Amino acid sequence: MNVDIGNALASVASPGISREALESIDDQVAVAHERIEAGMDAGEHGYEALNLPERTDTDEIRLAADRVTGPETSAIITVGIGGSALGAATITDALNGADDPEAIYLDNVDPEWLTSELARLDLETTVVNVVSRSGTTAETLANFLVVREAFESAGVDWTERTIVTTGESGPLRDLVDRHDLPSLEVPDGVPGRFSALSAVGMVAAAVCGHDLDALLEGAAAEAETLTGSLFECPAYAYGATAYALDARGAGINAMMPYAESLETYAEWFAQLWAESLGKDDLGQTPVRALGATDQHSQLQLYRAGPRDKLVTFVSAEEGADREIPDTDVDDLAYLGDATLGELLDAEFEATEASLAAAGRPNVRVEIERVDEFELGGLLYGMEAACVLAGELYGVNTFEQPAVEWAKKATRGLLGGGEFEEAEAVAEKTELRIER
Amino acid sequence: MNVDIGNALASVASPGISREALESIDDQVAVAHERIEAGMDAGEHGYEALNLPERTDTDEIRLAADRVTGPETSAIITVGIGGSALGAATITDALNGADDPEAIYLDNVDPEWLTSELARLDLETTVVNVVSRSGTTAETLANFLVVREAFESAGVDWTERTIVTTGESGPLRDLVDRHDLPSLEVPDGVPGRFSALSAVGMVAAAVCGHDLDALLEGAAAEAETLTGSLFECPAYAYGATAYALDARGAGINAMMPYAESLETYAEWFAQLWAESLGKDDLGQTPVRALGATDQHSQLQLYRAGPRDKLVTFVSAEEGADREIPDTDVDDLAYLGDATLGELLDAEFEATEASLAAAGRPNVRVEIERVDEFELGGLLYGMEAACVLAGELYGVNTFEQPAVEWAKKATRGLLGGGEFEEAEAVAEKTELRIER
Repeated sequence: MNVDIGNALASVASPGISREALESIDDQVAVAHERIEAGMDAGEHGYEALNLPERTDTDEIRLAADRVTGPETSAIITVGIGGSALGAATITDALNGADDPEAIYLDNVDPEWLTSELARLDLETTVVNVVSRSGTTAETLANFLVVREAFESAGVDWTERTIVTTGESGPLRDLVDRHDLPSLEVPDGVPGRFSALSAVGMVAAAVCGHDLDALLEGAAAEAETLTGSLFECPAYAYGATAYALDARGAGINAMMPYAESLETYAEWFAQLWAESLGKDDLGQTPVRALGATDQHSQLQLYRAGPRDKLVTFVSAEEGADREIPDTDVDDLAYLGDATLGELLDAEFEATEASLAAAGRPNVRVEIERVDEFELGGLLYGMEAACVLAGELYGVNTFEQPAVEWAKKATRGLLGGGEFEEAEAVAEKTELRIER
Repeated sequence: MNVDIGNALASVASPGISREALESIDDQVAVAHERIEAGMDAGEHGYEALNLPERTDTDEIRLAADRVTGPETSAIITVGIGGSALGAATITDALNGADDPEAIYLDNVDPEWLTSELARLDLETTVVNVVSRSGTTAETLANFLVVREAFESAGVDWTERTIVTTGESGPLRDLVDRHDLPSLEVPDGVPGRFSALSAVGMVAAAVCGHDLDALLEGAAAEAETLTGSLFECPAYAYGATAYALDARGAGINAMMPYAESLETYAEWFAQLWAESLGKDDLGQTPVRALGATDQHSQLQLYRAGPRDKLVTFVSAEEGADREIPDTDVDDLAYLGDATLGELLDAEFEATEASLAAAGRPNVRVEIERVDEFELGGLLYGMEAACVLAGELYGVNTFEQPAVEWAKKATRGLLGGGEFEEAEAVAEKTELRIER
């Protein structure tokens, strides 16, 4: 990826970063980079994620996928939540064409939705990947039990259709051993939200026939740019700019790709950014947006609301295109001379300029096209940007302690043990206004 | 809807609202309500939206839908963007079952996506609703020209499958006259983002067979609660609480329904809130979230990040449910005693309590179930909440002037006239960091 931070400069925007401040932040980047490089070299928890382009074994992923997939495969269900679903979904939603198997993600525990998804699928030609490092994630295991029962009811042997992606031990690993299922390992030292470029993120892509090696090659090309200066590394330029703008009042980061196929990428980014940096009362709040659609929804706020936002655009330079047919309406004749792609590009450039003209900071992330290589680079680049930002904030990027409280309370409420958190639920302060 | 603002009180959360402050805000609510009621009585621009439950003619909508729909109808494409799509999409995404016609929304101008959507549909059994008040919205007209051409290429007479929803005059109205198409009018005085309960939002619902009258009845029941006190009106309680929390530092409002079917509702809310209140450097930034999924993505930030957020939950008390099958894994045995619905409810209550325990303000919006009546009430209630908040901020809730700049620039870039905005695009400040 390439990054253009020109519209985040103080000469354009407020808040904005002066050239002097950028130089000063670059000294911090050099220090942070040393820490990151040391963490990578030592394979420390979290930093290890940045070694995935070298470490992930794509043959092993393809072999596991091949054991359950055939030419008739119509769908792959990934049963997982959070980082166990979003990386894989980002890749298949970006790359899947009309003829590829459908990739479905059971990342919620809504009974109506789950029932309707299972009802519309042809289970005879559907394969399953269940993903949980611990093998005990309540939502994932509950959904998997339901999916397994649905296969049994349909007279389909689930053991011939199921891949398991889990840790070295735990209930899902036991299941693998009991039924001799194809399995892959969630890599050690890599938090879920940083696992897109491991087996966790790549099984569905393998089933859908995408080029896993090209994903890693794109990531490796991005890894090569990691140096001690933001002026030489797009990922660090992005992370440092976002951090510096947050420090100057832009506590919100709206991620706005101009490609329908990258809508899920914005979801993935939102988890990466929120869960990694949102601690110690710090962290920029990610907002998921989509160009051109959100010009008709969020742009009014971005341009004229509080000066508390960075808008990050992602734009692909090339892609399939389609002519807009001619029209006999005079007022719209200009459309007939354009393609849909030209219209989308014009909307992107216009929106970017519209924010700059209003002095609102924005950054442009450019990729050449939406393919495996470029997507691998984008995912790796944003992960490296996030790790750098974590160093600059001084937070523990790779933990998520605030999620535990609700997990315990949920378990307590369902009778899975005694937890004081569950008792707190009953003590809710009420001030109800009823219809 | 019912609203519980107990977890937004200063005794629970920081920022939070003291009981004294609520009383004081209630005096402002009384004044704002007089303004709103006067606007409704006079049918003033914008306020007129709150009269839709009485004004919308559901017979007319059903008649238009019946002219293009038959028992074989498999899909309805709505061609529209922003408020011309989001209200309708909220309704069909919430209510559609597996056997209803599929509702598709062409609300972006991405060529690859549009081509792949058109390729997978059976155009023989697909109907179209094109929606634009002015009849000149570039994205909508470009997409409609492509859709029309696809019908022609497939040998299907588009004039027998197309409903037009537009203003009294303009290019789309001319098209209606030329081809004698079934048509509906975008109501005067109702901005797009407030038009869900008019023909704009209800055509797709009619094609999918939903009960339009029940939608309006639910809205009317909510309208009856509009009084001069937030303590008697759930909608005003919500709008006043969100406003007061923003004034106390919660500049972000995360809308988090606990139902997969309400995911699009959160998108609709985000447009309503952003475009109505985001002006004069004011306005809370809406964030679209989804329970339980985002517990594994955003909760860390909501609980431990900056104290700049209100989290709004929407929870349905009843719904279809599904048993979780028994498991022989000891550690997970508690799941086998529960249903998926009980798990989802427990996750909601646990998350709500988890934020309260960390002193983070949150509000619970309760509906009885996801059906026409309750959905109509939810949409109307949030519109009234937004109008009230607009009065309290003192902004012009019903305009969106900041969107114009980019529209002119886009048109200029595509050769649709001379616009100085298009020239500004070429003057972009660059600071590129390349891979």
